[in-house]
Amino acid sequence: MDIALLGEFGFIERLTKDFTVKNNTTVKGVGDDCAVIDAGEKYLLLTTELILEGIHFDLVYTPLKHLGYKAVVMACSDVCAMNGRPKQLTVSIGLSARFTVEQIEELYQGIHLACEEYGIDMVGGDTTASMTGLALSLTAIGEVEKEKVVYRSGASDTDLVCVTGDLGAAYMGVKLLEREKQVLEGNNVSQPKFSGYEYLLERQLKPRLRIDVIDALEEASILPTSMMDISDGLSSEMLHICKASSKGARIYLDRLPISSKTFDLAEEMGVDPVIAALNGGDDYELLFTVPVSKYEDVMRIGGIDVIGHMTPESKGVALTTPDGAEIAMQAPGWHKQEKQNDK
Amino acid sequence: MDIALLGEFGFIERLTKDFTVKNNTTVKGVGDDCAVIDAGEKYLLLTTELILEGIHFDLVYTPLKHLGYKAVVMACSDVCAMNGRPKQLTVSIGLSARFTVEQIEELYQGIHLACEEYGIDMVGGDTTASMTGLALSLTAIGEVEKEKVVYRSGASDTDLVCVTGDLGAAYMGVKLLEREKQVLEGNNVSQPKFSGYEYLLERQLKPRLRIDVIDALEEASILPTSMMDISDGLSSEMLHICKASSKGARIYLDRLPISSKTFDLAEEMGVDPVIAALNGGDDYELLFTVPVSKYEDVMRIGGIDVIGHMTPESKGVALTTPDGAEIAMQAPGWHKQEKQNDK
Repeated sequence: MDIALLGEFGFIERLTKDFTVKNNTTVKGVGDDCAVIDAGEKYLLLTTELILEGIHFDLVYTPLKHLGYKAVVMACSDVCAMNGRPKQLTVSIGLSARFTVEQIEELYQGIHLACEEYGIDMVGGDTTASMTGLALSLTAIGEVEKEKVVYRSGASDTDLVCVTGDLGAAYMGVKLLEREKQVLEGNNVSQPKFSGYEYLLERQLKPRLRIDVIDALEEASILPTSMMDISDGLSSEMLHICKASSKGARIYLDRLPISSKTFDLAEEMGVDPVIAALNGGDDYELLFTVPVSKYEDVMRIGGIDVIGHMTPESKGVALTTPDGAEIAMQAPGWHKQEKQNDK
Repeated sequence: MDIALLGEFGFIERLTKDFTVKNNTTVKGVGDDCAVIDAGEKYLLLTTELILEGIHFDLVYTPLKHLGYKAVVMACSDVCAMNGRPKQLTVSIGLSARFTVEQIEELYQGIHLACEEYGIDMVGGDTTASMTGLALSLTAIGEVEKEKVVYRSGASDTDLVCVTGDLGAAYMGVKLLEREKQVLEGNNVSQPKFSGYEYLLERQLKPRLRIDVIDALEEASILPTSMMDISDGLSSEMLHICKASSKGARIYLDRLPISSKTFDLAEEMGVDPVIAALNGGDDYELLFTVPVSKYEDVMRIGGIDVIGHMTPESKGVALTTPDGAEIAMQAPGWHKQEKQNDK
């Protein structure tokens, strides 16, 4: 049977259905952004990311230093998504013969930069040859106080839906990189035209790890009722939260935080910026829900938008347009990457 | 610069030299079989393994179910090597389009079997497309009482060197599989000739995870002074222990535990069985040192051989032949796989 027939979640469901939990230190296995392990005083959060050349990155336009930095953010973002802070990281690399020492040093410079910036210890890994291209596998370990772990499943049907930063910029960044790659193919004269779009490139090539949001929420004494990081796209993550919490939601299209740079390039390239925001992914912002009573506290933090609210499950998950029409929320099909912890 | 010029350990050294430890929960980073994380009451052990098609396995002769089982053993063996017991596991897979649902189910059946047999919880992972072939990345988490963690660095210069099981059989198993693959290429009639060599095939395709040894040592109140699992080969691991402990060693060639099946096939194929035992690797047995006073206690366990003793560092690391000659111990160069935690 073709894997695509089952769909991403059906496939993971089928592979993992027979596995049972046997150790009492396993608090949460497959099914959230991280696995949760009882370490006595605290919970440890465990998450892993497999990042393959040709699938997740194109070295034609991805500097290795940026790739290293982003890989750390990709792995550690899932720890933040559980309201935790990443502490340790392992990095495994598979390398084909075309890579030089200097290139891999560049990759590690990016990993080092992210580790320094976010206070993470690189504690090991595995280095191996590869038949083709570059393979990266990162595992992040984080910690969270037991009473502060946030799952996808805790949203109640009156909660507000909040999102950090802005959405769709990373997607427009990769669209720009791909356009310039095509222009340059068969053309050794032109320089790529990135001027004015530095913000979009940075969002794609060097996303932020939102530990600052975890800190700000704690300082404001706000404990989200559910949370995810936005790696696949807002729609996909919103559907996960609704499913895990057995709730519906209404997301207001005119409240989606979209940067003017995203709008500009989307217009130039004939892309719908709202679709970029809903399905683009790769932003690594945080999507979370809070009780209505926390509205003012959340707004006081800054850089966070309330984009909708949860509903009873029977109402479904929908987008509300400015004129009040409702569109059922859908996520794209088999995505380039799907995590078992994202089931 | 070509990576091979630096050699495996030089390369890892160069990549990881700038990383500093910033969190007080990081007890041990790069440099042993696992990273060690202080979890309060216990230590958690963290290790990761990247296993790539064409480098680590050949699907022509590796059944997917066996591959899944062996991958779990490969990942978890490093936990045993620190005197720990594996508890949780994540499994990431990258899949090219040629794989069917049924094939990947077979792989997971092997993973499931190993998890059941060794009491390990599969708690997550990452599933992604791949451009070519099958990529597996496993991360194992184990635990050990703080006062019982065993590093490579604790051997003293009078300790005995012990090894579990027998060595070289997994290597002869893969030699057999490769021979039969070549015979069968361009030949649709023959069946491979494996009869009589089931033991060697099992050692290659379905190695044991030696948690039983960790249990037996504990029952006998034996705390090894240093330990490693034998993945790359006895010589390589022995040199690691000597380097980490700043000691020398003498290993007696006539004491190496080698199965009669290994001898038989080695003779048939014109391979030196001692070289298979020293450098073959893939046995996943345990190599450890104990104080001389523990000799009888170790022998009473059964299935463990004393193959030599540690010495002061100035004496070097050498093999002693039956006639008393000494040969400096050497490990093969850039191996198919090298772990940062094996630095």
